[in-house]
Amino acid sequence: MPIRPVFFVSDGTGITAETIGNSLLTQFAGIDFERQRLPFVDTLEKVRQAAETIRVAGEKHGSQPIVVNTIVDSEMARVLAASGALVLDVFEPFMPRLEQSLGQPWTPTVGQAHALVDFEAYERRMDATNFALTHDDGTDLDYDDADVLLVGVSRSGKTPTCLYLALHYSLRAANYPLTPEDLEADRLPEKLRRHRRKLFGLSIDPQRLQKIREERKPGSRYATLEVCRREVAIAEAMFKREQIPVLSTTHTSIEEIASKIVAQFGFRRSHF
Amino acid sequence: MPIRPVFFVSDGTGITAETIGNSLLTQFAGIDFERQRLPFVDTLEKVRQAAETIRVAGEKHGSQPIVVNTIVDSEMARVLAASGALVLDVFEPFMPRLEQSLGQPWTPTVGQAHALVDFEAYERRMDATNFALTHDDGTDLDYDDADVLLVGVSRSGKTPTCLYLALHYSLRAANYPLTPEDLEADRLPEKLRRHRRKLFGLSIDPQRLQKIREERKPGSRYATLEVCRREVAIAEAMFKREQIPVLSTTHTSIEEIASKIVAQFGFRRSHF
Repeated sequence: MPIRPVFFVSDGTGITAETIGNSLLTQFAGIDFERQRLPFVDTLEKVRQAAETIRVAGEKHGSQPIVVNTIVDSEMARVLAASGALVLDVFEPFMPRLEQSLGQPWTPTVGQAHALVDFEAYERRMDATNFALTHDDGTDLDYDDADVLLVGVSRSGKTPTCLYLALHYSLRAANYPLTPEDLEADRLPEKLRRHRRKLFGLSIDPQRLQKIREERKPGSRYATLEVCRREVAIAEAMFKREQIPVLSTTHTSIEEIASKIVAQFGFRRSHF
Repeated sequence: MPIRPVFFVSDGTGITAETIGNSLLTQFAGIDFERQRLPFVDTLEKVRQAAETIRVAGEKHGSQPIVVNTIVDSEMARVLAASGALVLDVFEPFMPRLEQSLGQPWTPTVGQAHALVDFEAYERRMDATNFALTHDDGTDLDYDDADVLLVGVSRSGKTPTCLYLALHYSLRAANYPLTPEDLEADRLPEKLRRHRRKLFGLSIDPQRLQKIREERKPGSRYATLEVCRREVAIAEAMFKREQIPVLSTTHTSIEEIASKIVAQFGFRRSHF
Protein backbone atom coordinates (compact mmCIF):
# COMPACT_ATOMS: atom_id res chain seq x y z
CA MET A 1 0.00 0.00 0.00
CA PRO A 2 1.43 3.45 -0.85
CA ILE A 3 2.52 5.84 1.88
CA ARG A 4 -0.10 8.48 2.64
CA PRO A 5 1.37 11.96 3.11
CA VAL A 6 -0.47 13.94 5.78
CA PHE A 7 -0.11 17.68 6.38
CA PHE A 8 -1.25 19.61 9.42
CA VAL A 9 -1.65 23.14 8.09
CA SER A 10 -2.30 26.18 10.23
CA ASP A 11 -1.95 29.94 10.36
CA GLY A 12 -0.82 29.45 13.99
CA THR A 13 1.27 26.78 15.75
CA GLY A 14 -0.52 23.87 14.06
CA ILE A 15 -1.09 22.21 17.44
CA THR A 16 -4.86 22.00 16.98
CA ALA A 17 -4.57 20.64 13.43
CA GLU A 18 -2.00 18.06 14.51
CA THR A 19 -3.92 17.02 17.62
CA ILE A 20 -7.21 16.40 15.85
CA GLY A 21 -5.42 15.01 12.78
CA ASN A 22 -3.58 12.39 14.80
CA SER A 23 -6.80 11.47 16.61
CA LEU A 24 -8.52 10.88 13.27
CA LEU A 25 -5.65 8.86 11.81
CA THR A 26 -5.44 6.66 14.92
CA GLN A 27 -8.83 5.29 13.89
CA PHE A 28 -7.40 3.83 10.67
CA ALA A 29 -5.12 0.88 11.42
CA GLY A 30 -2.54 -0.55 9.04
CA ILE A 31 -1.99 2.55 6.90
CA ASP A 32 1.47 4.06 6.66
CA PHE A 33 1.04 7.80 7.19
CA GLU A 34 3.89 10.25 6.71
CA ARG A 35 3.05 13.28 8.80
CA GLN A 36 4.31 16.83 8.53
CA ARG A 37 3.28 20.03 10.24
CA LEU A 38 3.16 23.27 8.25
CA PRO A 39 2.68 26.01 10.87
CA PHE A 40 2.40 29.80 10.53
CA VAL A 41 1.00 29.65 7.01
CA ASP A 42 -0.51 33.11 7.28
CA THR A 43 -0.01 34.81 3.93
CA LEU A 44 -1.30 33.97 0.47
CA GLU A 45 2.29 33.41 -0.69
CA LYS A 46 2.92 30.88 2.11
CA VAL A 47 -0.34 29.11 1.31
CA ARG A 48 0.76 28.77 -2.32
CA GLN A 49 4.07 27.28 -1.18
CA ALA A 50 2.27 24.89 1.16
CA ALA A 51 -0.10 23.80 -1.61
CA GLU A 52 2.89 23.11 -3.86
CA THR A 53 4.65 21.06 -1.13
CA ILE A 54 1.45 19.04 -0.70
CA ARG A 55 1.00 18.50 -4.45
CA VAL A 56 4.61 17.30 -4.84
CA ALA A 57 4.25 14.85 -1.92
CA GLY A 58 1.14 13.36 -3.53
CA GLU A 59 2.99 12.94 -6.81
CA LYS A 60 6.03 11.40 -5.12
CA HIS A 61 4.01 8.78 -3.24
CA GLY A 62 1.39 8.28 -5.92
CA SER A 63 -1.44 8.80 -3.42
CA GLN A 64 -3.84 11.56 -2.47
CA PRO A 65 -2.39 13.66 0.37
CA ILE A 66 -4.53 14.34 3.43
CA VAL A 67 -4.61 17.89 4.78
CA VAL A 68 -5.97 18.79 8.18
CA ASN A 69 -6.46 22.52 8.06
CA THR A 70 -7.15 25.19 10.66
CA ILE A 71 -6.54 28.22 8.42
CA VAL A 72 -9.56 30.43 8.94
CA ASP A 73 -9.26 32.61 5.81
CA SER A 74 -11.55 31.22 3.14
CA GLU A 75 -9.50 32.43 0.15
CA MET A 76 -6.40 30.75 1.60
CA ALA A 77 -8.37 27.56 2.21
CA ARG A 78 -9.37 27.57 -1.46
CA VAL A 79 -5.74 27.75 -2.60
CA LEU A 80 -4.99 24.78 -0.34
CA ALA A 81 -7.86 22.76 -1.82
CA ALA A 82 -6.43 23.28 -5.32
CA SER A 83 -3.46 21.06 -4.35
CA GLY A 84 -5.57 17.98 -5.08
CA ALA A 85 -5.44 16.82 -1.46
CA LEU A 86 -8.34 15.67 0.66
CA VAL A 87 -8.70 18.83 2.74
CA LEU A 88 -10.37 18.42 6.12
CA ASP A 89 -11.29 21.82 7.46
CA VAL A 90 -11.41 21.67 11.26
CA PHE A 91 -13.65 24.68 11.81
CA GLU A 92 -16.12 24.44 8.98
CA PRO A 93 -18.37 21.54 10.13
CA PHE A 94 -18.98 22.98 13.61
CA MET A 95 -19.42 26.67 12.99
CA PRO A 96 -23.02 26.82 11.69
CA ARG A 97 -24.36 24.93 14.74
CA LEU A 98 -22.22 26.95 17.16
CA GLU A 99 -23.34 30.21 15.55
CA GLN A 100 -26.95 29.16 15.90
CA SER A 101 -26.66 28.08 19.53
CA LEU A 102 -24.61 31.12 20.54
CA GLY A 103 -26.74 33.54 18.52
CA GLN A 104 -23.80 35.35 16.94
CA PRO A 105 -21.63 34.89 13.84
CA TRP A 106 -18.08 33.72 14.31
CA THR A 107 -15.26 36.20 13.77
CA PRO A 108 -12.37 34.40 12.07
CA THR A 109 -9.34 35.00 14.27
CA VAL A 110 -5.97 34.00 12.88
CA GLY A 111 -3.70 31.76 14.94
CA GLN A 112 -5.21 32.57 18.31
CA ALA A 113 -5.80 29.16 19.86
CA HIS A 114 -2.29 28.81 21.26
CA ALA A 115 -1.35 32.46 21.45
CA LEU A 116 -0.17 34.12 24.63
CA VAL A 117 -2.76 34.52 27.36
CA ASP A 118 -2.70 37.24 29.99
CA PHE A 119 0.29 38.07 32.18
CA GLU A 120 -1.22 36.47 35.31
CA ALA A 121 -1.78 33.15 33.53
CA TYR A 122 1.75 33.33 32.11
CA GLU A 123 3.17 34.03 35.55
CA ARG A 124 1.23 31.11 37.08
CA ARG A 125 2.64 28.81 34.45
CA MET A 126 6.20 30.04 34.97
CA ASP A 127 5.80 29.82 38.70
CA ALA A 128 4.53 26.24 38.45
CA THR A 129 7.43 25.27 36.16
CA ASN A 130 9.89 26.83 38.55
CA PHE A 131 8.25 25.02 41.45
CA ALA A 132 8.50 21.67 39.64
CA LEU A 133 12.20 22.27 39.02
CA THR A 134 13.03 23.27 42.58
CA HIS A 135 10.90 20.48 44.08
CA ASP A 136 12.11 17.73 41.79
CA ASP A 137 13.53 14.52 43.17
CA GLY A 138 13.37 15.52 46.81
CA THR A 139 15.61 18.60 46.42
CA ASP A 140 13.34 20.98 48.31
CA LEU A 141 11.15 19.23 50.87
CA ASP A 142 8.91 22.18 51.69
CA TYR A 143 5.59 21.03 50.25
CA ASP A 144 3.34 23.63 51.87
CA ASP A 145 2.73 25.37 48.54
CA ALA A 146 2.43 22.20 46.48
CA ASP A 147 -0.85 21.38 44.73
CA VAL A 148 0.11 17.76 44.32
CA LEU A 149 2.98 15.58 45.54
CA LEU A 150 3.96 12.55 43.48
CA VAL A 151 5.58 9.66 45.30
CA GLY A 152 7.28 6.60 43.86
CA VAL A 153 10.52 4.70 43.49
CA SER A 154 13.33 6.16 41.40
CA ARG A 155 12.55 6.22 37.62
CA SER A 156 8.84 5.55 37.96
CA GLY A 157 7.99 8.62 35.84
CA LYS A 158 7.56 11.33 38.48
CA THR A 159 9.73 14.07 36.97
CA PRO A 160 8.24 14.28 33.46
CA THR A 161 4.74 14.08 34.95
CA CYS A 162 5.47 17.01 37.28
CA LEU A 163 6.86 19.09 34.41
CA TYR A 164 3.83 18.27 32.27
CA LEU A 165 1.45 19.21 35.11
CA ALA A 166 3.27 22.54 35.46
CA LEU A 167 3.37 23.39 31.75
CA HIS A 168 -0.17 22.26 30.92
CA TYR A 169 -2.17 22.80 34.07
CA SER A 170 -0.08 25.41 35.91
CA LEU A 171 -0.08 23.08 38.89
CA ARG A 172 2.66 23.20 41.50
CA ALA A 173 3.67 19.59 41.36
CA ALA A 174 6.46 18.30 43.59
CA ASN A 175 7.89 14.82 43.60
CA TYR A 176 9.48 12.72 46.27
CA PRO A 177 11.49 9.60 45.41
CA LEU A 178 11.17 6.79 47.94
CA THR A 179 14.79 6.23 48.98
CA PRO A 180 16.31 2.87 49.93
CA GLU A 181 16.09 4.08 53.56
CA ASP A 182 12.38 4.91 53.22
CA LEU A 183 11.76 1.48 51.70
CA GLU A 184 13.87 -0.20 54.39
CA ALA A 185 11.81 1.50 57.11
CA ASP A 186 8.67 0.43 55.17
CA ARG A 187 6.77 3.40 56.46
CA LEU A 188 5.46 6.55 54.82
CA PRO A 189 8.15 9.19 55.50
CA GLU A 190 7.24 11.72 58.19
CA LYS A 191 7.70 14.68 55.81
CA LEU A 192 4.98 13.24 53.57
CA ARG A 193 2.48 12.43 56.34
CA ARG A 194 1.64 16.11 56.84
CA HIS A 195 0.62 16.35 53.18
CA ARG A 196 -1.35 13.16 52.97
CA ARG A 197 -4.16 14.69 50.92
CA LYS A 198 -1.76 15.90 48.23
CA LEU A 199 -0.13 12.51 47.71
CA PHE A 200 -0.40 10.52 44.51
CA GLY A 201 1.58 7.32 43.99
CA LEU A 202 3.21 6.22 40.75
CA SER A 203 4.04 2.58 40.28
CA ILE A 204 5.60 0.64 37.42
CA ASP A 205 6.11 -2.91 36.27
CA PRO A 206 9.48 -4.17 37.69
CA GLN A 207 10.62 -5.50 34.29
CA ARG A 208 10.00 -2.14 32.67
CA LEU A 209 11.68 -0.34 35.56
CA GLN A 210 14.70 -2.60 35.19
CA LYS A 211 14.95 -1.72 31.51
CA ILE A 212 14.71 2.03 32.20
CA ARG A 213 17.26 1.93 35.04
CA GLU A 214 19.65 -0.17 32.96
CA GLU A 215 19.62 2.60 30.32
CA ARG A 216 20.69 5.08 33.00
CA LYS A 217 23.12 3.09 35.11
CA PRO A 218 24.15 0.00 33.17
CA GLY A 219 25.29 -2.93 35.32
CA SER A 220 24.44 -1.26 38.64
CA ARG A 221 22.79 -3.10 41.55
CA TYR A 222 20.10 -0.40 41.35
CA ALA A 223 19.21 -1.69 37.88
CA THR A 224 18.91 -5.38 38.80
CA LEU A 225 15.52 -7.01 38.45
CA GLU A 226 15.75 -8.21 42.06
CA VAL A 227 16.11 -4.67 43.45
CA CYS A 228 13.40 -3.31 41.12
CA ARG A 229 10.98 -6.06 42.20
CA ARG A 230 11.60 -5.50 45.89
CA GLU A 231 11.32 -1.69 45.72
CA VAL A 232 8.10 -1.77 43.68
CA ALA A 233 6.53 -4.38 46.01
CA ILE A 234 7.28 -2.35 49.15
CA ALA A 235 6.09 0.90 47.55
CA GLU A 236 2.83 -0.62 46.30
CA ALA A 237 2.11 -2.17 49.72
CA MET A 238 2.76 1.22 51.32
CA PHE A 239 0.38 3.03 48.94
CA LYS A 240 -2.30 0.46 49.65
CA ARG A 241 -1.88 0.56 53.43
CA GLU A 242 -1.90 4.36 53.48
CA GLN A 243 -4.77 4.59 50.99
CA ILE A 244 -2.79 6.74 48.58
CA PRO A 245 -4.27 6.78 45.06
CA VAL A 246 -1.87 5.06 42.71
CA LEU A 247 -1.40 4.63 38.98
CA SER A 248 0.87 2.34 37.05
CA THR A 249 2.95 4.19 34.46
CA THR A 250 3.91 1.04 32.54
CA HIS A 251 1.33 1.33 29.79
CA THR A 252 0.34 4.93 30.38
CA SER A 253 1.58 8.02 28.59
CA ILE A 254 2.55 11.19 30.46
CA GLU A 255 -0.58 12.84 29.01
CA GLU A 256 -2.78 10.12 30.46
CA ILE A 257 -1.10 10.13 33.88
CA ALA A 258 -1.41 13.91 34.10
CA SER A 259 -5.04 13.85 32.98
CA LYS A 260 -5.89 11.18 35.59
CA ILE A 261 -4.16 13.10 38.39
CA VAL A 262 -6.05 16.27 37.44
CA ALA A 263 -9.34 14.33 37.40
CA GLN A 264 -8.54 12.65 40.75
CA PHE A 265 -7.98 15.95 42.55
CA GLY A 266 -10.62 17.88 40.60
CA PHE A 267 -8.29 20.62 39.35
CA ARG A 268 -9.69 22.92 36.64
CA ARG A 269 -7.02 25.05 34.93
CA SER A 270 -5.40 23.95 31.72
CA HIS A 271 -3.43 25.16 28.68
CA PHE A 272 -3.90 23.43 25.37
CA MET B 1 -25.53 37.34 28.73
CA PRO B 2 -25.71 34.01 30.56
CA ILE B 3 -22.62 31.91 31.17
CA ARG B 4 -22.21 29.12 28.64
CA PRO B 5 -21.12 25.83 30.22
CA VAL B 6 -18.75 23.89 27.95
CA PHE B 7 -17.75 20.27 28.44
CA PHE B 8 -14.89 18.45 26.76
CA VAL B 9 -15.94 14.81 26.94
CA SER B 10 -13.72 11.88 26.03
CA ASP B 11 -13.17 8.19 26.61
CA GLY B 12 -9.45 9.06 26.83
CA THR B 13 -7.52 12.01 28.23
CA GLY B 14 -9.81 14.62 26.70
CA ILE B 15 -6.82 16.47 25.24
CA THR B 16 -8.13 16.30 21.67
CA ALA B 17 -11.64 17.42 22.69
CA GLU B 18 -10.25 20.30 24.74
CA THR B 19 -7.76 21.38 22.07
CA ILE B 20 -10.29 21.58 19.26
CA GLY B 21 -12.99 22.89 21.61
CA ASN B 22 -10.84 25.80 22.72
CA SER B 23 -9.90 26.54 19.11
CA LEU B 24 -13.59 26.72 18.19
CA LEU B 25 -14.55 28.89 21.16
CA THR B 26 -11.68 31.32 20.47
CA GLN B 27 -13.57 32.31 17.33
CA PHE B 28 -16.49 33.67 19.37
CA ALA B 29 -15.51 36.83 21.20
CA GLY B 30 -17.38 38.31 24.14
CA ILE B 31 -19.06 35.15 25.39
CA ASP B 32 -18.38 33.94 28.92
CA PHE B 33 -17.60 30.23 28.64
CA GLU B 34 -17.21 28.02 31.72
CA ARG B 35 -15.07 25.08 30.62
CA GLN B 36 -14.75 21.66 32.17
CA ARG B 37 -13.03 18.51 31.00
CA LEU B 38 -14.68 15.13 31.58
CA PRO B 39 -11.99 12.56 30.70
CA PHE B 40 -12.03 8.75 30.78
CA VAL B 41 -15.79 8.51 30.21
CA ASP B 42 -15.51 4.95 28.95
CA THR B 43 -18.52 3.06 30.34
CA LEU B 44 -22.24 3.54 29.83
CA GLU B 45 -22.59 4.34 33.54
CA LYS B 46 -19.97 7.10 33.33
CA VAL B 47 -21.66 8.51 30.22
CA ARG B 48 -24.97 8.68 32.11
CA GLN B 49 -23.23 10.54 34.96
CA ALA B 50 -21.60 12.92 32.46
CA ALA B 51 -24.93 13.59 30.74
CA GLU B 52 -26.48 14.39 34.13
CA THR B 53 -23.63 16.78 35.04
CA ILE B 54 -24.13 18.52 31.69
CA ARG B 55 -27.91 18.75 32.09
CA VAL B 56 -27.59 20.23 35.59
CA ALA B 57 -25.07 22.85 34.37
CA GLY B 58 -27.47 23.93 31.63
CA GLU B 59 -30.28 24.28 34.16
CA LYS B 60 -28.10 26.20 36.61
CA HIS B 61 -26.97 28.77 34.01
CA GLY B 62 -30.21 28.83 32.05
CA SER B 63 -28.37 28.23 28.78
CA GLN B 64 -27.73 25.35 26.42
CA PRO B 65 -24.46 23.60 27.32
CA ILE B 66 -21.91 22.95 24.58
CA VAL B 67 -20.31 19.51 24.46
CA VAL B 68 -17.23 18.75 22.41
CA ASN B 69 -17.12 14.99 22.23
CA THR B 70 -14.51 12.45 21.14
CA ILE B 71 -16.26 9.34 22.47
CA VAL B 72 -16.25 6.88 19.58
CA ASP B 73 -19.01 4.52 20.78
CA SER B 74 -22.25 5.51 19.06
CA GLU B 75 -24.58 4.29 21.86
CA MET B 76 -22.63 6.35 24.39
CA ALA B 77 -22.75 9.37 22.08
CA ARG B 78 -26.57 9.01 21.99
CA VAL B 79 -26.80 9.08 25.79
CA LEU B 80 -24.72 12.25 25.77
CA ALA B 81 -26.99 13.90 23.18
CA ALA B 82 -30.00 13.27 25.44
CA SER B 83 -28.59 15.81 27.95
CA GLY B 84 -30.07 18.63 25.85
CA ALA B 85 -26.65 20.04 25.01
CA LEU B 86 -25.35 21.08 21.63
CA VAL B 87 -23.11 18.05 21.03
CA LEU B 88 -20.26 18.56 18.58
CA ASP B 89 -18.85 15.19 17.64
CA VAL B 90 -15.21 15.61 16.62
CA PHE B 91 -14.90 12.45 14.54
CA GLU B 92 -18.23 12.27 12.78
CA PRO B 93 -17.88 15.02 10.13
CA PHE B 94 -14.53 13.79 8.84
CA MET B 95 -14.89 10.02 8.82
CA PRO B 96 -16.93 9.46 5.65
CA ARG B 97 -14.47 11.42 3.50
CA LEU B 98 -11.44 9.79 5.13
CA GLU B 99 -12.96 6.33 4.66
CA GLN B 100 -13.53 7.06 1.02
CA SER B 101 -10.06 8.44 0.36
CA LEU B 102 -8.31 5.67 2.32
CA GLY B 103 -10.55 2.93 0.93
CA GLN B 104 -11.23 1.29 4.28
CA PRO B 105 -13.80 1.71 7.08
CA TRP B 106 -12.66 3.24 10.36
CA THR B 107 -12.31 0.98 13.37
CA PRO B 108 -13.45 2.94 16.44
CA THR B 109 -10.55 2.77 18.89
CA VAL B 110 -11.24 3.97 22.42
CA GLY B 111 -8.94 6.56 23.97
CA GLN B 112 -5.93 5.86 21.78
CA ALA B 113 -4.91 9.30 20.59
CA HIS B 114 -2.77 10.09 23.64
CA ALA B 115 -2.01 6.57 24.78
CA LEU B 116 1.50 5.28 25.30
CA VAL B 117 3.58 4.84 22.19
CA ASP B 118 6.41 2.32 21.84
CA PHE B 119 9.28 1.95 24.29
CA GLU B 120 11.84 3.62 21.99
CA ALA B 121 9.68 6.73 21.61
CA TYR B 122 9.11 6.79 25.39
CA GLU B 123 12.82 6.49 26.01
CA ARG B 124 13.61 9.30 23.56
CA ARG B 125 11.16 11.52 25.36
CA MET B 126 12.57 10.66 28.80
CA ASP B 127 16.09 11.13 27.53
CA ALA B 128 15.23 14.54 26.10
CA THR B 129 13.56 15.60 29.37
CA ASN B 130 16.58 14.47 31.33
CA PHE B 131 18.85 16.34 28.92
CA ALA B 132 16.83 19.54 29.35
CA LEU B 133 17.12 19.25 33.13
CA THR B 134 20.86 18.59 33.18
CA HIS B 135 21.58 21.26 30.56
CA ASP B 136 19.37 23.94 32.05
CA ASP B 137 20.73 27.37 32.87
CA GLY B 138 24.33 26.62 31.97
CA THR B 139 24.74 23.73 34.46
CA ASP B 140 26.28 21.29 31.99
CA LEU B 141 28.10 23.01 29.14
CA ASP B 142 28.68 19.95 26.98
CA TYR B 143 26.44 20.68 24.02
CA ASP B 144 27.74 18.02 21.63
CA ASP B 145 24.52 15.99 21.96
CA ALA B 146 22.16 18.97 21.89
CA ASP B 147 19.66 19.35 19.06
CA VAL B 148 19.15 23.00 19.84
CA LEU B 149 20.76 25.52 22.18
CA LEU B 150 18.71 28.46 23.39
CA VAL B 151 20.57 31.62 24.33
CA GLY B 152 19.25 34.69 26.10
CA VAL B 153 19.44 36.87 29.18
CA SER B 154 18.20 35.51 32.50
CA ARG B 155 14.38 35.10 32.59
CA SER B 156 13.79 35.46 28.87
CA GLY B 157 11.83 32.16 28.76
CA LYS B 158 14.54 29.64 27.93
CA THR B 159 13.82 27.00 30.58
CA PRO B 160 10.10 26.38 29.97
CA THR B 161 10.73 26.38 26.21
CA CYS B 162 13.44 23.72 26.59
CA LEU B 163 11.16 21.58 28.76
CA TYR B 164 8.33 21.94 26.26
CA LEU B 165 10.64 21.00 23.36
CA ALA B 166 11.69 17.90 25.28
CA LEU B 167 8.20 16.79 26.30
CA HIS B 168 6.49 17.51 22.99
CA TYR B 169 9.16 17.03 20.35
CA SER B 170 11.66 14.75 22.13
CA LEU B 171 14.33 17.29 21.29
CA ARG B 172 17.50 17.63 23.35
CA ALA B 173 17.24 21.30 24.11
CA ALA B 174 19.91 23.01 26.20
CA ASN B 175 19.92 26.59 27.32
CA TYR B 176 22.66 29.03 28.11
CA PRO B 177 21.99 32.24 30.03
CA LEU B 178 24.11 35.18 28.94
CA THR B 179 25.88 36.13 32.17
CA PRO B 180 26.84 39.68 33.16
CA GLU B 181 30.43 38.72 32.22
CA ASP B 182 29.34 37.56 28.75
CA LEU B 183 27.43 40.77 28.26
CA GLU B 184 30.36 42.81 29.58
CA ALA B 185 32.68 41.15 27.06
CA ASP B 186 30.00 41.81 24.41
CA ARG B 187 31.12 38.78 22.45
CA LEU B 188 29.51 35.40 21.80
CA PRO B 189 31.03 33.08 24.46
CA GLU B 190 33.67 30.68 23.11
CA LYS B 191 31.71 27.61 24.31
CA LEU B 192 28.80 28.63 22.10
CA ARG B 193 30.86 29.40 18.97
CA ARG B 194 31.51 25.70 18.32
CA HIS B 195 27.73 25.10 18.19
CA ARG B 196 26.79 28.07 16.09
CA ARG B 197 24.33 26.14 13.93
CA LYS B 198 22.35 24.96 16.97
CA LEU B 199 21.90 28.44 18.43
CA PHE B 200 18.54 30.16 18.76
CA GLY B 201 18.18 33.46 20.60
CA LEU B 202 15.31 34.48 22.83
CA SER B 203 14.69 38.12 23.49
CA ILE B 204 12.09 39.99 25.50
CA ASP B 205 10.77 43.47 26.01
CA PRO B 206 12.79 45.13 28.86
CA GLN B 207 9.60 46.29 30.64
CA ARG B 208 8.21 42.78 30.66
CA LEU B 209 11.56 41.37 31.77
CA GLN B 210 11.67 43.86 34.62
CA LYS B 211 8.22 42.73 35.77
CA ILE B 212 9.20 39.05 35.65
CA ARG B 213 12.51 39.59 37.47
CA GLU B 214 10.83 41.75 40.10
CA GLU B 215 8.51 38.79 40.88
CA ARG B 216 11.58 36.60 41.49
CA LYS B 217 14.00 38.96 43.21
CA PRO B 218 12.06 41.98 44.45
CA GLY B 219 14.13 45.13 44.84
CA SER B 220 17.31 43.67 43.35
CA ARG B 221 19.58 45.56 40.97
CA TYR B 222 19.05 42.63 38.60
CA ALA B 223 15.35 43.56 38.43
CA THR B 224 15.83 47.28 37.67
CA LEU B 225 14.60 48.56 34.34
CA GLU B 226 18.03 50.05 33.67
CA VAL B 227 19.81 46.67 33.94
CA CYS B 228 17.07 44.91 31.95
CA ARG B 229 17.32 47.48 29.16
CA ARG B 230 21.09 47.26 28.96
CA GLU B 231 21.21 43.44 28.99
CA VAL B 232 18.52 43.08 26.32
CA ALA B 233 20.18 45.70 24.07
CA ILE B 234 23.59 43.98 24.24
CA ALA B 235 22.06 40.51 23.68
CA GLU B 236 20.00 41.66 20.69
CA ALA B 237 23.00 43.38 19.10
CA MET B 238 25.01 40.20 19.61
CA PHE B 239 22.33 38.00 17.99
CA LYS B 240 22.19 40.37 15.03
CA ARG B 241 25.95 40.58 14.59
CA GLU B 242 26.35 36.80 14.83
CA GLN B 243 23.32 36.14 12.61
CA ILE B 244 21.62 34.01 15.24
CA PRO B 245 17.86 33.56 14.61
CA VAL B 246 15.95 35.32 17.37
CA LEU B 247 12.41 35.50 18.65
CA SER B 248 10.84 37.84 21.15
CA THR B 249 8.96 36.00 23.88
CA THR B 250 7.03 39.07 25.03
CA HIS B 251 3.80 38.35 23.18
CA THR B 252 4.48 34.73 22.35
CA SER B 253 3.30 31.63 24.19
CA ILE B 254 5.61 28.71 24.92
CA GLU B 255 3.68 26.68 22.34
CA GLU B 256 4.34 29.31 19.67
CA ILE B 257 8.02 29.70 20.51
CA ALA B 258 8.53 25.92 20.44
CA SER B 259 6.61 25.55 17.19
CA LYS B 260 8.69 28.33 15.57
CA ILE B 261 11.98 26.79 16.70
CA VAL B 262 10.93 23.41 15.32
CA ALA B 263 9.98 25.02 12.00
CA GLN B 264 13.24 27.01 11.88
CA PHE B 265 15.43 23.92 12.25
CA GLY B 266 13.13 21.62 10.28
CA PHE B 267 12.70 19.02 13.04
CA ARG B 268 10.00 16.40 12.48
CA ARG B 269 9.09 14.38 15.62
CA SER B 270 6.23 15.39 17.87
CA HIS B 271 3.88 14.13 20.60
CA PHE B 272 0.39 15.53 20.72
